Amino acid sequence: MKEDDTMLTLDKIYHASKVLKDVIHPTTIVRASAIDVDCNLYLKPECLQLTGSFKLRGSGYKISQLTDEEKARGVIACSAGNHAQGVALAATKYGIKSLICLPDGAPISKVEATKGFGAEVCMVKGVYDDAYNEACRLRDKHNYTFIHPFDDENVIAGQGTIGLEIMNEMNDVDAVVVAIGGGGLISGVACAIKSLNPDVKVYGVQAEGAASMYESIKKGEITTLDRASTIADGIQVKRPGDLTFEYVKKYVDEVVTVSEDEISAAILALIEKQKMVAEGAGAAPLAAVMAGKLPVKGKKVVCVVSGGNIDVTILNRVIKRGLISSGRQQTLCIQLDDKPGQLLGVSEIIANHGANVISIHHERASEGEITDCILRIVLETRNFDHVKEISNALRKAGFRLV
Amino acid sequence: MKEDDTMLTLDKIYHASKVLKDVIHPTTIVRASAIDVDCNLYLKPECLQLTGSFKLRGSGYKISQLTDEEKARGVIACSAGNHAQGVALAATKYGIKSLICLPDGAPISKVEATKGFGAEVCMVKGVYDDAYNEACRLRDKHNYTFIHPFDDENVIAGQGTIGLEIMNEMNDVDAVVVAIGGGGLISGVACAIKSLNPDVKVYGVQAEGAASMYESIKKGEITTLDRASTIADGIQVKRPGDLTFEYVKKYVDEVVTVSEDEISAAILALIEKQKMVAEGAGAAPLAAVMAGKLPVKGKKVVCVVSGGNIDVTILNRVIKRGLISSGRQQTLCIQLDDKPGQLLGVSEIIANHGANVISIHHERASEGEITDCILRIVLETRNFDHVKEISNALRKAGFRLV
Repeated sequence: MKEDDTMLTLDKIYHASKVLKDVIHPTTIVRASAIDVDCNLYLKPECLQLTGSFKLRGSGYKISQLTDEEKARGVIACSAGNHAQGVALAATKYGIKSLICLPDGAPISKVEATKGFGAEVCMVKGVYDDAYNEACRLRDKHNYTFIHPFDDENVIAGQGTIGLEIMNEMNDVDAVVVAIGGGGLISGVACAIKSLNPDVKVYGVQAEGAASMYESIKKGEITTLDRASTIADGIQVKRPGDLTFEYVKKYVDEVVTVSEDEISAAILALIEKQKMVAEGAGAAPLAAVMAGKLPVKGKKVVCVVSGGNIDVTILNRVIKRGLISSGRQQTLCIQLDDKPGQLLGVSEIIANHGANVISIHHERASEGEITDCILRIVLETRNFDHVKEISNALRKAGFRLV
Repeated sequence: MKEDDTMLTLDKIYHASKVLKDVIHPTTIVRASAIDVDCNLYLKPECLQLTGSFKLRGSGYKISQLTDEEKARGVIACSAGNHAQGVALAATKYGIKSLICLPDGAPISKVEATKGFGAEVCMVKGVYDDAYNEACRLRDKHNYTFIHPFDDENVIAGQGTIGLEIMNEMNDVDAVVVAIGGGGLISGVACAIKSLNPDVKVYGVQAEGAASMYESIKKGEITTLDRASTIADGIQVKRPGDLTFEYVKKYVDEVVTVSEDEISAAILALIEKQKMVAEGAGAAPLAAVMAGKLPVKGKKVVCVVSGGNIDVTILNRVIKRGLISSGRQQTLCIQLDDKPGQLLGVSEIIANHGANVISIHHERASEGEITDCILRIVLETRNFDHVKEISNALRKAGFRLV
């Protein structure tokens, strides 16, 4: 990037902060002492932001800076989620028309929320890329003003206001951890923080299944992934932005990746310990800290919880995985002799040990002895000790666990 | 209650508020504009309180007011959940010993949290009542000071500080809605609010399956239920307190009940719209407002979200119920001819319509034609329209849905 290009400056982020005062909701940093990690952990809860994510900041500032002529033409955007809601609400706040293209697979809750914030919604058959192409076609046809989700100086400046707020709320912070999808959020936050105090570390986190910025930084050039797949749909981006790639190179200390299991564990920790609902992208920074991927031992660390718009279906899967991994749900497969009273015997043992039956499946075995049956029981249990106790009692009574 | 009895006064609640300043965490009222109800809805988020519930207030003030001699003897309490954690943390803050009796069915997370706050834990075989009896036995044997969960003036005064805070934060509030288990929380809150402004309405909410205060008020005398059962375990109480019954009669405008489904819907709304995790008891006031059980149309209403310590197993059930009731998860039973290629045909239709298979169960039918098979598929779907679309496509292809 040449120095004479339109450059993001701290001044611009301060300006965005002033403009956004009447648009956004203040989000105060919370201490997360209940989450047991090796550092002093704080959260910047943008999941509590209006629209459920930080995106309103970028779209709000961007739209505020449009010329009257651009505003009059109306804005268009393309998104599978948070950006849609951010643009819709920002446009409505500034009294201008917005049209949002969404892939037809987008969760109904997000579609309804986007409409609820005042946007006109155009459902496009296919995936995000199809919706993007349709948005470009409509922009060209109707001369709408396009609002890019991340690769735009003003959008980045808007997201950067989170960095100012962190420095303002906690002047002794050691490190700030931010998720990366396209890179708009971390570009703004890192620019603000490094401009104010270069000693504060800024770390980026990507999902392993969508590590486009991570790969690009490693190779030293913008890299497009063949596919991107993660439960953190908010950061499921195949290619970083041109601007954001440069800012991450310039301002960010390190980019790491986290697995789906690590993200799930972080979502669950936020629910159980902080009573806070984060989406996958919002939990990714905490996932990196919990998994020990960052050199923050003993430091004061702020994780930006960028959003909370998690699909209930995904939340359901995360919780189920959490139940299993903590011994709270267990499947037992028991080989039974094919004779009366066997199910009764098993049921008695389970009931006596206070476990709750969720589902049961009883069928003739296709393997093993021709006279055998397989009983497959899913149980609600208290913990691994409880599971062990039940298994031992079953074995002691002569049942074969397979 | 005679006037010369030890009476709860506003002065005492102010005193509790002063004492608790260094013990509790401030919880600021939040506007819940995203939850679509017929009033201006606000939440007092005690789920974000230390220990995850309001209970610390009552136990904190109670313990602070013990004599040195009582403190020296150590405290004992009995609880299946929130009171345990409140007493444990309060005792530790005042540097005194605590012993908590818990029924052995209590979730391991709550047992661990209670230990984590510094209490010694005594696991008692059986249910709450067994743990209570054991606590009384230990109190008598070792001369511990017993901390009652609700029927105690100082405990009630501590809980009442929430009422002061609401009046302080929102002096134009019209109504405050509070869950009732034993009645300690609402007694304190209602006393504070009515003493400051008798025009502010105070409503109580109980679970249908544990409506002991509701029945007692209706009959005009304290009534003990044979059994109490609800997912809102925090308010699963068979008998109101003697003191709390009098305070509810004196200060509370109306007590209503909510169903398990209404509580579940409120928990889900808090998660999806407010990114806030509430337990059943914490969501009960919102459930009453959402279900239209209270005369609050157009009013400024504060629902006290009393706690967030929901068991992940219950959360899992609530979410599952929510998925089904919103068309996001659907079970289809299809009667198939018992010949090759049938499963393939169904799979193709489901895949073409973008639904995701969660589980599948294929077996010979025991009813109907002897040659039939039953295919039972659980699907992740987008909404009811999506379900209908898939069902119609299956029917059109000649499959029989049963």
